[in-house]
Amino acid sequence: MTQEILGIAASSGIAIAKAFRLENPELKVEKKTVTDIDSEIARLEKALATSTSELEKIKEHALKELGQDKAEIFSAHLLVLSDPELINPIKEKIQTENVNAEVALDEVASMFISMFESMDNEYMKERAADIRDVTKRVLAHLLGVNISNPSMISEEVVIIAEDLTPSDTAQLNRQYVKGFTTDIGGRTSHSAIMARSMEIPAVVGTKTVMHDIENGALVIIDGLDGKVLVNPSEEVVKQYEDKAAAYEAQKAEWAKLVNEKTVSADNHHVELAANIGTPEDVKGVLENGGEAVGLYRTEFLYMGREDLPTEEEQFTSYKTVLERMEGKPVVVRTLDIGGDKELPYLNLPKEMNPFLGFRAIRLCLEMQDMFRTQLRALLRASVYGNLKVMFPMIATLDEFRQAKAILLEEKEKLQAEGVSVSDNIEVGMMVEIPSSAVMADLFAKEVDFFSIGTNDLIQYTLAADRMNERVSYLYQPYNPAILRLIHMVILAAHKEGKWVGMCGEMAGDEIAIPILLALGLDEFSMSATSILKARSQIRQLSKAEIEPHIETILSMSSTEEVIEFVKSTFNLA
Amino acid sequence: MTQEILGIAASSGIAIAKAFRLENPELKVEKKTVTDIDSEIARLEKALATSTSELEKIKEHALKELGQDKAEIFSAHLLVLSDPELINPIKEKIQTENVNAEVALDEVASMFISMFESMDNEYMKERAADIRDVTKRVLAHLLGVNISNPSMISEEVVIIAEDLTPSDTAQLNRQYVKGFTTDIGGRTSHSAIMARSMEIPAVVGTKTVMHDIENGALVIIDGLDGKVLVNPSEEVVKQYEDKAAAYEAQKAEWAKLVNEKTVSADNHHVELAANIGTPEDVKGVLENGGEAVGLYRTEFLYMGREDLPTEEEQFTSYKTVLERMEGKPVVVRTLDIGGDKELPYLNLPKEMNPFLGFRAIRLCLEMQDMFRTQLRALLRASVYGNLKVMFPMIATLDEFRQAKAILLEEKEKLQAEGVSVSDNIEVGMMVEIPSSAVMADLFAKEVDFFSIGTNDLIQYTLAADRMNERVSYLYQPYNPAILRLIHMVILAAHKEGKWVGMCGEMAGDEIAIPILLALGLDEFSMSATSILKARSQIRQLSKAEIEPHIETILSMSSTEEVIEFVKSTFNLA
Repeated sequence: MTQEILGIAASSGIAIAKAFRLENPELKVEKKTVTDIDSEIARLEKALATSTSELEKIKEHALKELGQDKAEIFSAHLLVLSDPELINPIKEKIQTENVNAEVALDEVASMFISMFESMDNEYMKERAADIRDVTKRVLAHLLGVNISNPSMISEEVVIIAEDLTPSDTAQLNRQYVKGFTTDIGGRTSHSAIMARSMEIPAVVGTKTVMHDIENGALVIIDGLDGKVLVNPSEEVVKQYEDKAAAYEAQKAEWAKLVNEKTVSADNHHVELAANIGTPEDVKGVLENGGEAVGLYRTEFLYMGREDLPTEEEQFTSYKTVLERMEGKPVVVRTLDIGGDKELPYLNLPKEMNPFLGFRAIRLCLEMQDMFRTQLRALLRASVYGNLKVMFPMIATLDEFRQAKAILLEEKEKLQAEGVSVSDNIEVGMMVEIPSSAVMADLFAKEVDFFSIGTNDLIQYTLAADRMNERVSYLYQPYNPAILRLIHMVILAAHKEGKWVGMCGEMAGDEIAIPILLALGLDEFSMSATSILKARSQIRQLSKAEIEPHIETILSMSSTEEVIEFVKSTFNLA
Repeated sequence: MTQEILGIAASSGIAIAKAFRLENPELKVEKKTVTDIDSEIARLEKALATSTSELEKIKEHALKELGQDKAEIFSAHLLVLSDPELINPIKEKIQTENVNAEVALDEVASMFISMFESMDNEYMKERAADIRDVTKRVLAHLLGVNISNPSMISEEVVIIAEDLTPSDTAQLNRQYVKGFTTDIGGRTSHSAIMARSMEIPAVVGTKTVMHDIENGALVIIDGLDGKVLVNPSEEVVKQYEDKAAAYEAQKAEWAKLVNEKTVSADNHHVELAANIGTPEDVKGVLENGGEAVGLYRTEFLYMGREDLPTEEEQFTSYKTVLERMEGKPVVVRTLDIGGDKELPYLNLPKEMNPFLGFRAIRLCLEMQDMFRTQLRALLRASVYGNLKVMFPMIATLDEFRQAKAILLEEKEKLQAEGVSVSDNIEVGMMVEIPSSAVMADLFAKEVDFFSIGTNDLIQYTLAADRMNERVSYLYQPYNPAILRLIHMVILAAHKEGKWVGMCGEMAGDEIAIPILLALGLDEFSMSATSILKARSQIRQLSKAEIEPHIETILSMSSTEEVIEFVKSTFNLA
């Protein structure tokens, strides 16, 4: 019988394929006294050998399917397996303490892992991660437990996992992985964002898929309605094949809107923009009919390297994005590092609460050389398109004033050097800290525009880390407190004749869109792949018809009430 | 010549004494190859012996001056020093690797520390701390560097330190320590709060005292104006002796207000309450003329023990406080654990951002057995005085409704069992999360009172961890965004006929008091030792005269403007 599991719709579409379980078994080590030392060492040798041949196969496969750099991970693992500094102490421990191989391996590896992790050196910390991965594999063989090798997938599957880390997904082969579902996570977890950018259907936060689904079972992932169907009957499979076809047809309809304006049924125009991370993303923006880049996250320029990017490197990236957007607006956010995004080469101290810490504009105002380099690159690129600059994590007016003053200083310096700089660069800020929403009336007098960053605004306003499963129920985009703050910001901006955008996940959310439209949001910036659907939705909504409901919505006492009301009033599924 | 260092006034009063530097030297270990193994081992043995005799003296002194439990710390250290499992590998390392004693000690100790720290067991983690302390001492002797032994102080001094940890202060002898000053910290850091409760003058956040002040130098700590004077001239000493006398006289004046009501110059009455942690604190509340307990932090009942306190233990504490307060209001906050306050025996998982994590009411609504035990103890105690119950960290109406429903369920159960429970228990909540301030109009319909928790409200509203030095400049109590939120909460509550208290540090702050009075705050809860000063200040203020300035203050753009305005308008130093 078809089993239905409910979860959170994280990426649209329907996938039907066999289940591939990404196992992450808990490996319990029990201490035993061994008398036959030689055969215990032989057990260890055998587990090492099996692991080695397994890793060699995986490496070969990775090299063929995923390329040189993904394969390097496994070369590092193979080196660990043959390192006498690790292996000999394990054998000695078996010999001198008469313990079983599992315990000897676990204790020696733990010691090395602790040692490497405690060192203030990224390279050593990576070695700790390698040792942990390899130890797990050997331990699994000693215990006779299966672990998964996602890079070995070579037929069409849907992935079933507790969670997917970025390194898990690095090993996935897009050709074969048709969709995935996880026990944990929400709409804004890494795995969900990745699924949307890979355009594969995903349902997250199911709590039970790892418990309920066996390897090889036929599974349907319904990323439209947030459902997972296990061992579906033929009838159900047929039904979902129809649903998939209907969705494809709908996407084809949406695709016709690619060159249309975004105008509501009562002729109110808004701008649909895209969030991007690299110049390569511009292609997707244009293909999906994006009218602007609403958020260019520049931190990717700084990540995955050994030192800061030069002014020249940055200039090239910014210029490329501006040119490819052909005069359409490009809102560039200055460096937003810190929090969950680290740059190892800056050697910033660990913080107890990184989300409430030294990050983004706080860091840029202190590390001014780095900040000025970015601003100069932006200013120089400004003549190649329609550049708007915004500062992240502004909490006080003083911070905005300082940041803007530095920008103007660099502009004057460049002009004095004879470099041409556009005179029409709008300078705005992210509203993502409650204080700036509460003070929006004063900020509005000094900025050219606001962009509301709902991902952070929600987590600070409700004091709930959106990455923390135990409080993720408090990460509530439709909480009336959030809607009230958005309302305040838009009112304040419009009073001063300034425009307001939004670049959090919420801007592309079908429940939020009717409310945001009626609140008067001017620009909606989202994943490029969400634009056409949003355009289609907005074209069917009447701003004037929703407006009278706003007072009711803002005086509701819970997220649930808001969702209920929007769904029933605006006819959403 | 007198040198003047500016800092943050953390605890009032004047101290004049010789400097005692609490050294925390960085011990740099350099690797050397040794040829004379025997003499290197002899060096190690000598450092171990010196450390042992030093620790024995300290232990003896601690036993005499500080009592048995403080002395135990040093017994644990002595055990480490004689542990062959630690000492033998160090000697072996010298012998087999021909390295110097410092390196051998450091490497072996680091390995043990990493090992113990990585274990999920509080006892083992404490052993790691012991090894670290002892290693430091031995290493200092090997390197010929001095380290401080604060427990050995036996003459009047002022402490000069980079920072004071709770364990540092545990070793301080109140009889001899007349005041302290630190390089880091703010008004709400642990050391500042401790200084106020010990009633010793303190200046924190000076940045340079460790750099500028030598051991034995004469130092004046001016905890009134946040100044530290080094090597003062006779004239300056005389001047400060006068200032100290004037302050004592002022305190004597304040003391006369102990039984007075707290009424402003224009006859507006407010309630001055105290924050307490244990039944023993009630004495100080009454001595300082507290009209109520505005915040009873119940988490101390749960701390420093191996398991949860029983209903009976809790009942006794709550009953004692209520009885000792003789019918005056006692606002008890239900368990606020998590964040920076951990209970090892609950085995809660580590969080990336504990301040945005699973804490306080979030935890209580999930661990309902624990929560219900506390509520039963409170309900049973309610007949012994004037109990009010409040829930911490309420972010949504749903949470408040759930918590209140559980309280009412337990009340009904007790009454069904024939236990008498007061029928006049007010049920309120902390407003310390921005969402609850923004939604105060709806909350006000359902609560009996609000208590604004500014410490947390400020850090969430400005997204700045108050414990994090690098962003502590953003921890701004007078930021207009904070004042606007407080204003919103008071307006909303008064509209529904409910009262509003404040139990953060801000309630006792002389710059905040005029504003809070004019905003209509009904109850100010603070350190008991701040009450008389606040009463004196309020008696000189006219609420009606300040009110016309409120609009101006709320439309200011920065903290600095607010401070400037309040100081000049209300004649503060």
